[in-house]
Amino acid sequence: MQEKELISIIKSSLSSEYIGDDCAYLKELGIVITQDSLVEDIHFKREYITPFQLGYKSVMVNLSDIASSGAKPAYLTVSLSLPKDINKNFVEEFYKGCKSALKNGEQIVGGDITGSDKIYISICAIGKTAERNISSRKNARIGYKVIVSGNHGSSAAGLKLLQQNKKNDNFTIPHLMPEAQIEFGSKIAQQIKEPYAMMDTSDGLMDALATIAKESGVCLEVDFDKIPHDKNIEKFENWQDLVLFGGEDYQLLACVPCDYNGGIHIGTVKDGSGVDLNINNKLFHYTYTDVVKKEFNHFK
Amino acid sequence: MQEKELISIIKSSLSSEYIGDDCAYLKELGIVITQDSLVEDIHFKREYITPFQLGYKSVMVNLSDIASSGAKPAYLTVSLSLPKDINKNFVEEFYKGCKSALKNGEQIVGGDITGSDKIYISICAIGKTAERNISSRKNARIGYKVIVSGNHGSSAAGLKLLQQNKKNDNFTIPHLMPEAQIEFGSKIAQQIKEPYAMMDTSDGLMDALATIAKESGVCLEVDFDKIPHDKNIEKFENWQDLVLFGGEDYQLLACVPCDYNGGIHIGTVKDGSGVDLNINNKLFHYTYTDVVKKEFNHFK
Repeated sequence: MQEKELISIIKSSLSSEYIGDDCAYLKELGIVITQDSLVEDIHFKREYITPFQLGYKSVMVNLSDIASSGAKPAYLTVSLSLPKDINKNFVEEFYKGCKSALKNGEQIVGGDITGSDKIYISICAIGKTAERNISSRKNARIGYKVIVSGNHGSSAAGLKLLQQNKKNDNFTIPHLMPEAQIEFGSKIAQQIKEPYAMMDTSDGLMDALATIAKESGVCLEVDFDKIPHDKNIEKFENWQDLVLFGGEDYQLLACVPCDYNGGIHIGTVKDGSGVDLNINNKLFHYTYTDVVKKEFNHFK
Repeated sequence: MQEKELISIIKSSLSSEYIGDDCAYLKELGIVITQDSLVEDIHFKREYITPFQLGYKSVMVNLSDIASSGAKPAYLTVSLSLPKDINKNFVEEFYKGCKSALKNGEQIVGGDITGSDKIYISICAIGKTAERNISSRKNARIGYKVIVSGNHGSSAAGLKLLQQNKKNDNFTIPHLMPEAQIEFGSKIAQQIKEPYAMMDTSDGLMDALATIAKESGVCLEVDFDKIPHDKNIEKFENWQDLVLFGGEDYQLLACVPCDYNGGIHIGTVKDGSGVDLNINNKLFHYTYTDVVKKEFNHFK
């Protein structure tokens, strides 16, 4: 089964109003909450990533979800399942990595540890809403501008290099040690008074564009040339696919009123559905389904 | 490595004041939080447990942690990692089971779903402190009485039966579908004004007794004859071991002022350390280490 199919089963099983954004917004408690897991050989391989980097990345992935809500990251719990061959040094390095990702006073307050066949990490993070304006994927409005926080494609390019046993810190570090865009999200949530949409690009920029378009019932039009990327990525085969569809950059994508001053402007919210992509002086339309199926290279 | 050894590495790596109880108590937010994981072939086997029961138990295990703090369970996130051979029906039944464990208005508000080799479930639960008196394992005081919420040993006996391909609902149901003792915990947290100690007996009654004794710097003296158990458990080989050391009953153990009216009185808090067990008219002393090593049958 596809992840999206499973999520729709879960949504209908639970019929919860909360499920849909990166975080659930628990208004009565003044918090947002998220939980994300990393599974060995699905999300990472021990050959590529050090225990320190793994701890760092596991925490950042969850801080990124909090950042995408606009809330202030505050507390985390860490659940770790470990095979018998893992030694004490691994555990120490992993937690050092976790701790070093906590750069703004966030605290790990609990969790558990169990045995398993493979390494399995599940982290729950809580952010304080702190009277901020919390995002929703449903809030992209016609006329808003589309902005992102930074480079796309670097993480996917880094993964390609690691799979080929190559190393180039410009790409492998963004993959192994991504940075949650906490400031980008905080500034928006503190300055914008109107409803706005924001999510992280953990599953790729196109996925985030198509998801916000679908949830908000609008079309997002984007200029490929405006999407920030490392110039050296252009040496990779099908580099535009990496920029558009590559996952795990953990940047933020937001649809905000035009008078907001910040982020890198890559497009506009308009009437319609799906994503309109301007590339090589042509306009390509992607439906949500096109994006889910990762219909690469439409524009070639 | 032993789980307890790992936890001490984590504690020293994180130097967090929060780690130690079943839940972390986040005073500024008025909540407690806990996260517990269940891993296939470590905590359960697909042969023994239905998907519905697995969802039910996974939620109850986490509600039990909240109950042990005295807080009111409120919100959960569910992270599920599934092998490819799992079908849609499994997922639907699992979430039905989760939902049916939510008997007091608790809500599942998020989580994620990923691929994996085996089934991994990690659940995070939040409880509202709601001006209640939250427990701590450090709060058992000399002269307090030791009380429990219900039967011990049934779950471990049930597991034995399942492993032998036998079935007896009196034991297998407590193992497959334990009940978090929410009312027991709530009543204590609402009625008692003094500090008190409470934890669940997920790792066995003796483990809970020894842990509270260690954390509070006291000795817990317990009369074996007063420990509630299903009379039919006495037909099992070494049944006293099941009652004392068997895990997963998810009952609550509390050390409370003597004027508290409730629970089943099994012993007293006194000066000293470890656990003093009265059994067959003899007094056996267990250090914390004895209990961790599960030194069975000392009293034979």
